Amino acid sequence: MSVTNALASFVVSSRFESIPTDVIHEAKRALLNFAGCAIGGSREPAVETAIRALQPFSGERTAALLARPERFDPLYASVINGISGHVFEYDDTTPMNYIHPTPPVASALFAFASANKISGIDFLHAFILGFETESRIGNAVYPAHYDAGWHITATAGVFGAAAAVGKLLNLSTQEMIWAMGLAATQASGLREMFGSMAKSFHAGHAARNGYLAAVLAKSGFTAGEHAIEGPRGFAPVLASRYELSKITTGLGEDFQIRYNTYKPYPCGLVVQPTIDGCIDLYRDYRPAPESIRAIRVRVAPLVLDLCNKRNFQTGLESKYSIYHSAAIGLVRGKAGHDEYTDAAANDPLLRRVRELVTPISDAQITEDQSDIEVELEDGRVLHRFVECSLGNLKRPLSDRQLEEKFRDQVRLPDVDRLIDMFWRLDESLHVNEIVSATCG
Amino acid sequence: MSVTNALASFVVSSRFESIPTDVIHEAKRALLNFAGCAIGGSREPAVETAIRALQPFSGERTAALLARPERFDPLYASVINGISGHVFEYDDTTPMNYIHPTPPVASALFAFASANKISGIDFLHAFILGFETESRIGNAVYPAHYDAGWHITATAGVFGAAAAVGKLLNLSTQEMIWAMGLAATQASGLREMFGSMAKSFHAGHAARNGYLAAVLAKSGFTAGEHAIEGPRGFAPVLASRYELSKITTGLGEDFQIRYNTYKPYPCGLVVQPTIDGCIDLYRDYRPAPESIRAIRVRVAPLVLDLCNKRNFQTGLESKYSIYHSAAIGLVRGKAGHDEYTDAAANDPLLRRVRELVTPISDAQITEDQSDIEVELEDGRVLHRFVECSLGNLKRPLSDRQLEEKFRDQVRLPDVDRLIDMFWRLDESLHVNEIVSATCG
Repeated sequence: MSVTNALASFVVSSRFESIPTDVIHEAKRALLNFAGCAIGGSREPAVETAIRALQPFSGERTAALLARPERFDPLYASVINGISGHVFEYDDTTPMNYIHPTPPVASALFAFASANKISGIDFLHAFILGFETESRIGNAVYPAHYDAGWHITATAGVFGAAAAVGKLLNLSTQEMIWAMGLAATQASGLREMFGSMAKSFHAGHAARNGYLAAVLAKSGFTAGEHAIEGPRGFAPVLASRYELSKITTGLGEDFQIRYNTYKPYPCGLVVQPTIDGCIDLYRDYRPAPESIRAIRVRVAPLVLDLCNKRNFQTGLESKYSIYHSAAIGLVRGKAGHDEYTDAAANDPLLRRVRELVTPISDAQITEDQSDIEVELEDGRVLHRFVECSLGNLKRPLSDRQLEEKFRDQVRLPDVDRLIDMFWRLDESLHVNEIVSATCG
Repeated sequence: MSVTNALASFVVSSRFESIPTDVIHEAKRALLNFAGCAIGGSREPAVETAIRALQPFSGERTAALLARPERFDPLYASVINGISGHVFEYDDTTPMNYIHPTPPVASALFAFASANKISGIDFLHAFILGFETESRIGNAVYPAHYDAGWHITATAGVFGAAAAVGKLLNLSTQEMIWAMGLAATQASGLREMFGSMAKSFHAGHAARNGYLAAVLAKSGFTAGEHAIEGPRGFAPVLASRYELSKITTGLGEDFQIRYNTYKPYPCGLVVQPTIDGCIDLYRDYRPAPESIRAIRVRVAPLVLDLCNKRNFQTGLESKYSIYHSAAIGLVRGKAGHDEYTDAAANDPLLRRVRELVTPISDAQITEDQSDIEVELEDGRVLHRFVECSLGNLKRPLSDRQLEEKFRDQVRLPDVDRLIDMFWRLDESLHVNEIVSATCG
């Protein structure tokens, strides 16, 4: 059986009863985290601009958005949910493939569940299967695919959205194979867009295109049968090296959502250890900004590849700056939403300190680590080696820490009730009540 | 100035007065040919299925479709027009990059012109600029991009649609650069889908996504500034080799539409010389099908790469079969729409003859040539070497032949009036009258 067929068959035949309890709990954590990010991001200019541009094209407005009063048809609702959920760079990450896995899948699912009556159990089930699909396809093509310049969140995410919505549409195996084909042939998203609004659009675009793939397949719109492994299929065309066995080995047992992680800071994943260490140094020494002479940061090579933005004016760009991230940790001792605004990006003090930062690419340093030296005017050198950053698989955010992160982003009076809705998602008879609750 | 900037600036600053007369005439030919294909293809199952699936998602139905009574918002109208125009495999081709250039651009433009009042001159101008944009980007990445498995009609076409619609929306240079970025990051379409409905979807998807890119950019939705040449941009990510100078050299003077060609037969481009030769042999010898013992066809290597379908049940698949194409030429002496139906694909006589075909890949044979030997039961060998197939740049279809091709596909009482509307497109005050006329 081909890989595409095996994956489609797995999604079609999966039953909720066979999903392990810990996987279900992790799905709730992922959805809580995603909803917090979407609520937090829902007032960003990228969201407002997309809503304004897309309004005239919406079909029947059967779907509510997360955390916004406007209504859209469920395909455009998927787009907007995706932008809201991804724009803060605060979403989850699976470190084995650098996918932000929840936005593409959950954006489509919340839109679907708002326009159709879906129980919490069916929602969780579809989400877990969508997550599994995109993760395994991502695993198969990572790192060659990502290194080439693909935004893997989008390119793998479209498969996840197709599988998840396809599950709720009760696609047959043949239809699910077509949905995979229609997803594969829409897979797109370039890392060249990082630092612009287009990046967060990728998550929404993947959600919408995956949803569309499932809808078209359900109507009998055909596609190639070998979307992933065929000689002109996704893996050979979008990756110079790939390993198809990663799609099928342990399928249905080794659930990939177990390897999901949640960021404590709303910026590029690979700068998080440096922030950790700089916050530690602030807490321990409180160096006066004017006393700092130089900051040397030894980091994994990927950091300079992804987060080497030195000159910028916007908060969006600052999320990809190792310079800015070190500076805010040392100057403010925290890295919250307020540290990644346009105002923070142009703060003269932060500007001065970030110009003192020299990142050094070091293949001995892992992507969870950072080695920081702060040289002061009096000759002292403060040092911190971060062995393993907060939020990483070995130091995961607890359920309580995830709730705190949610509360930080969600300024709603009934935030506790909303959090509780996620922990009790499997008891919900109609997930749209959660979508409504995000609007306050 | 970067390549993306140069191209965007060219599109923004171009004036219709500077477009040479022969280029305008070639644009009319391309649009006439496209409209014929869209009318001819408009009843295909791929079109019917997509309309059924997309109906519930349409926004305000301000746009008419080509040759169909349904109305859609202009983005979905672009999708359907693209499917109609490409599904017959009868559309135009620029042989230097294997793009079918008109469907992605014209599908979006007809949708736009149906929902907005656009003059024939503005329409032609936008079309020529969109054609130029997609062709030059295609030239820059061909052949590595295509050989890797990308359906270049879709991946380059999305830029063409963005440029064309962007021109009609009067984008500024900055907005046009964003539109290019939003097009680049949606560029998708895999050759693995050839032979399924998804292939024709590519043309519509490119049209719609390019249109959307222009709409988003007009609203201020930002994208990366170096969509094409940036290190994670379109060219480096989607092509192992590329030549950016092909985008800018001679821009505004050496118009690519001058190199456009039109197929005489509704199937894969590279099998056309073989059909030519087989029809010649039929005309000269009329070999009885049961008298044929073997058929040997020496063809360019790309033929086996693209059109090696041997076993199939559908007319759609038969368009990519060198076996079927040789058989219909020899058995029926023609290759019209009726030769590429499901019925023809399953015709026992054609099936028997196509099993006798042995294609031989020969690097000495160009893609315009075919060397055919038909061995008969009585030992005779019929031979034909096709030096240059009909419709190719050296043997272009005349305006009259294009009209004939149009009439073959368009069974409308006022077909002559419709043809005349294309030749006099620059006199039209509202292009929607042409869209209406395609519906009869």
